[in-house]
Amino acid sequence: MRVKPLLYEVVANSIIRYIEAGNITAGERVPSLRQVSARHGVSVSTAAQAYVAIENRGLIVARPKSGFFVAPRSLLNIRELQPSRPGKRPTRIRSGDIRSRIIEIASDPDILPLGAATPGPELIPFTQLNRTMASACRRARAAALGYSHPAGCDALRHQLARRSLHWGCQLSPEDFVVTSGAMEALSLSLRATTRQGEIVALESPSFFGVLQAIEALGLRVLEIPTHPRTGLDLSQLATALRSERIAVVLSAPSFNNPLGSCMPTENRRRLLELVMKHQVPLIEDDTYGDLPFPPMSRPRAVKGFDTEGFVLHCGSVSKTLAPGWRVGWVAAGERYYDKIVRLKTSNTVTTATPQQLALADFFRDGDYDRNLRRLRRSYASQVQQMSDAVAKYFPPNIRLSRPRGGFFLWIELPKKVKSMTLHAHALAQGISIAPGSVFSADSRQFDNFIRLNCGLPWSGRVEDAVTVLGALVKKLDRA
Amino acid sequence: MRVKPLLYEVVANSIIRYIEAGNITAGERVPSLRQVSARHGVSVSTAAQAYVAIENRGLIVARPKSGFFVAPRSLLNIRELQPSRPGKRPTRIRSGDIRSRIIEIASDPDILPLGAATPGPELIPFTQLNRTMASACRRARAAALGYSHPAGCDALRHQLARRSLHWGCQLSPEDFVVTSGAMEALSLSLRATTRQGEIVALESPSFFGVLQAIEALGLRVLEIPTHPRTGLDLSQLATALRSERIAVVLSAPSFNNPLGSCMPTENRRRLLELVMKHQVPLIEDDTYGDLPFPPMSRPRAVKGFDTEGFVLHCGSVSKTLAPGWRVGWVAAGERYYDKIVRLKTSNTVTTATPQQLALADFFRDGDYDRNLRRLRRSYASQVQQMSDAVAKYFPPNIRLSRPRGGFFLWIELPKKVKSMTLHAHALAQGISIAPGSVFSADSRQFDNFIRLNCGLPWSGRVEDAVTVLGALVKKLDRA
Repeated sequence: MRVKPLLYEVVANSIIRYIEAGNITAGERVPSLRQVSARHGVSVSTAAQAYVAIENRGLIVARPKSGFFVAPRSLLNIRELQPSRPGKRPTRIRSGDIRSRIIEIASDPDILPLGAATPGPELIPFTQLNRTMASACRRARAAALGYSHPAGCDALRHQLARRSLHWGCQLSPEDFVVTSGAMEALSLSLRATTRQGEIVALESPSFFGVLQAIEALGLRVLEIPTHPRTGLDLSQLATALRSERIAVVLSAPSFNNPLGSCMPTENRRRLLELVMKHQVPLIEDDTYGDLPFPPMSRPRAVKGFDTEGFVLHCGSVSKTLAPGWRVGWVAAGERYYDKIVRLKTSNTVTTATPQQLALADFFRDGDYDRNLRRLRRSYASQVQQMSDAVAKYFPPNIRLSRPRGGFFLWIELPKKVKSMTLHAHALAQGISIAPGSVFSADSRQFDNFIRLNCGLPWSGRVEDAVTVLGALVKKLDRA
Repeated sequence: MRVKPLLYEVVANSIIRYIEAGNITAGERVPSLRQVSARHGVSVSTAAQAYVAIENRGLIVARPKSGFFVAPRSLLNIRELQPSRPGKRPTRIRSGDIRSRIIEIASDPDILPLGAATPGPELIPFTQLNRTMASACRRARAAALGYSHPAGCDALRHQLARRSLHWGCQLSPEDFVVTSGAMEALSLSLRATTRQGEIVALESPSFFGVLQAIEALGLRVLEIPTHPRTGLDLSQLATALRSERIAVVLSAPSFNNPLGSCMPTENRRRLLELVMKHQVPLIEDDTYGDLPFPPMSRPRAVKGFDTEGFVLHCGSVSKTLAPGWRVGWVAAGERYYDKIVRLKTSNTVTTATPQQLALADFFRDGDYDRNLRRLRRSYASQVQQMSDAVAKYFPPNIRLSRPRGGFFLWIELPKKVKSMTLHAHALAQGISIAPGSVFSADSRQFDNFIRLNCGLPWSGRVEDAVTVLGALVKKLDRA
């Protein structure tokens, strides 16, 4: 089903033809948004949408505070990823220890954590956050050390309800259960919606933490073909929902880890219709939802369309603020709220109080939004610099994601290069990567893929690491 | 099998006969430890053991800093609890919401939390703890906000290894996985040792959080008869291990919640032999182990006898320091460590960093031990005052626990008094209690029991609440 092209797509296609005709060359600045707006008779925001679409195809790059430029020739030559084609049968996951090991390696200060999913410490406003926590605890006195309500502190739930307007939702404080990070939110949501042996449908590739939780709960997965730019293939999902008894759909529509894809608004609406039609709940992993690359605005959560309580919306501040605070949440909706609270109390009783109080203050005072604006620019520029470096130092026969948010690159290496071998070689040189095999229940599917963390500010050390990785890939490809 | 009485038991029996003969009367001071030591030709510490044993029978009471006195006549008249007699078949738990509701009520500032399991805020050195955390975070800078190693911060694991000497263990930092409170430690330990539908053998009554976790994991329980003073009945456990296929034994040998019982050292050794003989792991809930009433010293953990890695030892600082920090641990032993780490990462990734750093400092500087000494005296005296008040205001046809540590009283009410009815009436008057029915898979077994929280400093408000409860019990008994 092909929808009529939207206005910004028409504009984008016209500009693409203009660039491809050689009218502007690599590294040159493209016309400003205002010029595009005037020339095509569209609004500035439509012009911005058009540029994001073009950027997404890798033809132009945004340089923070300077505007858009035609991509360096090298990146233009790197092919984009193709949609994934996972197996069509539900499977159990057998992981071994590699997934835990990746997290373990990420905390080793001697390893450059390109395999981690953490912002660089330089991007964390740590002085301000530590002060905010100290002052919140001082004010709360003994209450800072007592249990909160099992669903979380009132002040934080109130702030989350206010923030939900940014996600296109209108949630109330009573909709939220605060959790020990998004991982607990996802794990409790899986437990609330499944029984052992049942099937979870999800994107392929998917965040390995989710796969690990699914394995630990004795569930099976059915991976759905996923487009590197638009996410879950909904017609394939529809087929799966008709042919298999699926207990729950788990999706990260906004900047899925590792692809950085973003599901179009229309697809979000259709995704919700689909799960409602089949009476299957949807766990929406919105961990990266706050991290679109400027000028794109925050995508509306699928939860925002949900009037019947089918969506369990999970989020956290681990990728935007402070992973070590371990604060996340699930807005479970009427159908699952009570069950989630019961599971929460028998899992960790309540979430730690000091960081709940501190986060509520940080939200309330607007510090979170100020920080987020800075962070989104940093991530966008770091992903761009990493892409350029990969294009420069890796062999040309790779494929590269064009993420629209988050801070990962997903790279398809030549078929011969096994990501676990590359992982071992890279570690020996003090660099971690996330091997593609852990992002699927079928370890062969992404055997020649890797995920790179672009959460670290660009530096000589990072560039050197990409050089080393590129050389290793070339060597393994020739071996 | 009856063991030969130990020296302190011989001394204790001689003193009991002396008191029961009326030589010293209610409220009078008993001979000093030095006098007992001289008269019976035993060491002062044996004399102290004898007094603890007598105190445990409710004949004498310790008044902090003043020594031992013959118990007030009223308490002497209150019968002690009998061993529990749970059903002999493994059962599934159907809880409804009451267990979560108890925790929810505990955070309501308008309710006097006699149903909670929390220390009074006055007993938490909150200024010091808040300062310790602020300064630990300031020093750690950005690291205070990053993920720790999945098993926990090095500094805290190092301190836990040092503390394990107090428990009669010699654990190394690498034995520990830091968790979000003891609840996560217990929940992960259950998940590491069982599969859905399998049987957990445990004390009866048992902490309802554990029952809730067992329910959530789809396990079955087999409750073992439990003695109010010495804990698990080992011959009954032996029978159960022979006749049922038990996946794991879960026990709180030190001051089990709600009984406050303490398993004798010899029994601890036998418990370990028993599980080893049947090749069944033991989850040791040592949450209250640090809280014996003075002058009793800290009991040796069963883990201290474990040379083969059969014991998963779980603890936390939620009952001794700061429930809202959510820091606990499990020393899982070789057999289960890797599995626990995997489950931890897919459950909450890591435990929050700021409180791990703060707790390591608090342990290191001796502040924890200083606080503990004060706390143990407070809990002992609060339990004593609560016991006296219950004896005074409740009808005489009740039975009362004689806890040896922790901060609970477990009360058997007249048969006619349903604890859920009492719970509802008490709530209407602004008082929470923990109804006995939630401490067993069989909600009828302890239907006429309640648990009272003695974690609050004694006050007119607490005494008034006991008066109200006593009057309600009398009314319901007559109704």
